[in-house]
Amino acid sequence: MHSFKELSEKFADHFKTSFFPAEPSSLYEPSSYFLSLGGKRIRPTMSLMGNELFGDIHPETYHLAAAIELFHNFTLVHDDIMDNAALRRGMPTIHEKYGSSTALLSGDIMVIAAYEQLNKIKSVSLHQVLALFTQTAREVCEGQQLDMDFEKNDSVSLNQYLRMIELKTSVLLAASLSLGAMMGGASKGNLDHIYEFGRNLGIAFQVQDDYLDAFGDPEKFGKEQGGDIKQNKKTFLLIHALETCSKDQHAELMKLMKENAADKIEKVLSIYKDCNVADWAIKLKNQYVDQAEKHLENIAVLSSRKKPLQELSAFLVQREY
Amino acid sequence: MHSFKELSEKFADHFKTSFFPAEPSSLYEPSSYFLSLGGKRIRPTMSLMGNELFGDIHPETYHLAAAIELFHNFTLVHDDIMDNAALRRGMPTIHEKYGSSTALLSGDIMVIAAYEQLNKIKSVSLHQVLALFTQTAREVCEGQQLDMDFEKNDSVSLNQYLRMIELKTSVLLAASLSLGAMMGGASKGNLDHIYEFGRNLGIAFQVQDDYLDAFGDPEKFGKEQGGDIKQNKKTFLLIHALETCSKDQHAELMKLMKENAADKIEKVLSIYKDCNVADWAIKLKNQYVDQAEKHLENIAVLSSRKKPLQELSAFLVQREY
Repeated sequence: MHSFKELSEKFADHFKTSFFPAEPSSLYEPSSYFLSLGGKRIRPTMSLMGNELFGDIHPETYHLAAAIELFHNFTLVHDDIMDNAALRRGMPTIHEKYGSSTALLSGDIMVIAAYEQLNKIKSVSLHQVLALFTQTAREVCEGQQLDMDFEKNDSVSLNQYLRMIELKTSVLLAASLSLGAMMGGASKGNLDHIYEFGRNLGIAFQVQDDYLDAFGDPEKFGKEQGGDIKQNKKTFLLIHALETCSKDQHAELMKLMKENAADKIEKVLSIYKDCNVADWAIKLKNQYVDQAEKHLENIAVLSSRKKPLQELSAFLVQREY
Repeated sequence: MHSFKELSEKFADHFKTSFFPAEPSSLYEPSSYFLSLGGKRIRPTMSLMGNELFGDIHPETYHLAAAIELFHNFTLVHDDIMDNAALRRGMPTIHEKYGSSTALLSGDIMVIAAYEQLNKIKSVSLHQVLALFTQTAREVCEGQQLDMDFEKNDSVSLNQYLRMIELKTSVLLAASLSLGAMMGGASKGNLDHIYEFGRNLGIAFQVQDDYLDAFGDPEKFGKEQGGDIKQNKKTFLLIHALETCSKDQHAELMKLMKENAADKIEKVLSIYKDCNVADWAIKLKNQYVDQAEKHLENIAVLSSRKKPLQELSAFLVQREY
């Protein structure tokens, strides 16, 4: 058994291989550049963890993990174009550095390279792998579209927001684990449980992320407090506040979002406080963590094998506030 | 056996099925709109023809054909963004109608939907199908990147241009036929021959397209004469002229492309005439047609089965000048 950190390093080693030929360099150099920017490689590492839960790591799981990381980077490259983001991991995005047409094509080539990696899998049913991978890919695109739709929509409900987060973030974490488990020969029941573990963990993580932005200790969190508020980002907190606060507070929140007053963050936080948003968010997060843990418990393997996933869960969603 | 027209209608019937769920409609409505714009459905029909060359059409070939048409439309949607094209088949492009972010995601969802269709194939090795499909997808992206690179490059050689056309256009025609043949259980040798038939035919078609733009009868061709010249498009003709004309003619061609004089088309055509570009192009086209036909002849099936493909070849590359 290996820890997240150990598996993440193993994956990073494997992922150093080039996924692209040398030519045309005008297409492949930008893609290689982007992949070299690094990242925590959470998703492919989760595939290795999902695999190791059921036995020794099957070598083909590295192809799966690479496919997942390539797919994830495809979404990042295209999201950066859509968001007109200048930086990714502190470095210029592809469209900033090479132009938006090349960025578009670089994303395209990454998703194609992902399927190339999947096609190296021979030890389990490729149909089964493709079915979950492709369904997930579709859902992630749906999530991105909903996210863009919601930016222009003042009355997004909590359920709508939850569904968007599930699609945009959670399903890929869930599928990464579940596809890894598939490579380990897991039964249908175990595959479902590990998928649900990942899906619930992903939502809990997003609730926590939203919470920390407003209430976390900026020094520990490493981000400016209230960044989401400043950018009028829809979050679990804002949506809950809008759904539960008084008519006057609702009006004030809407007004604060339209203006950009110097004391905006302070005023929004004060409404959050009046509406007990922080307590609600912790409760919500804990509900999803509980659900996740329940599914992990229900996976029919020796509990000692679950330790790395328990540690990952604790690391992701029980960080100090 | 069926003609191209009959198979194209069969495919159109099958392709009426929706490939997308209803929601989120902000994502799927634009994709459905684009697919509904029609087109000649040449590639999927070629898959059916490649399949029928070896026996009755296998029902799963329709999934393959749909995957190919979805992939082709993915490239069109993304190309339209890159080219900033306002119209496709006389109708507004997705990015014109719905914005470029939605267009980007619509393309993404189409390539994912293509793999969904491929995953329905159970009767032959999915690995073999995915290998050729994914290699082709990669090559088409390479071709698009080279095409963009060449726009900014004044000294593209004939070989470079040929390679770009091969990647951007020919390989998908070749793969459409070959994947269809694969569904019909064709041998490795036959798969190679039908691939080469399609690849050579595709190049011949492009040579002819470039030729007709300059020398075709606008009434029969249905396009304004010299459209490529007007837009300074790199074509087989221009590249050959630049490679073979005198130093003075070379300088004049470069000058004509920089300016946009009223008599530009006339003057370029006059240089083409001096350099015998028309004869050269017909000879080049015929070389590729000959190659294509040789490969078709070498396919080991009854010659009566080859008739629809011979007709298609005649239709595509022996149109009246």
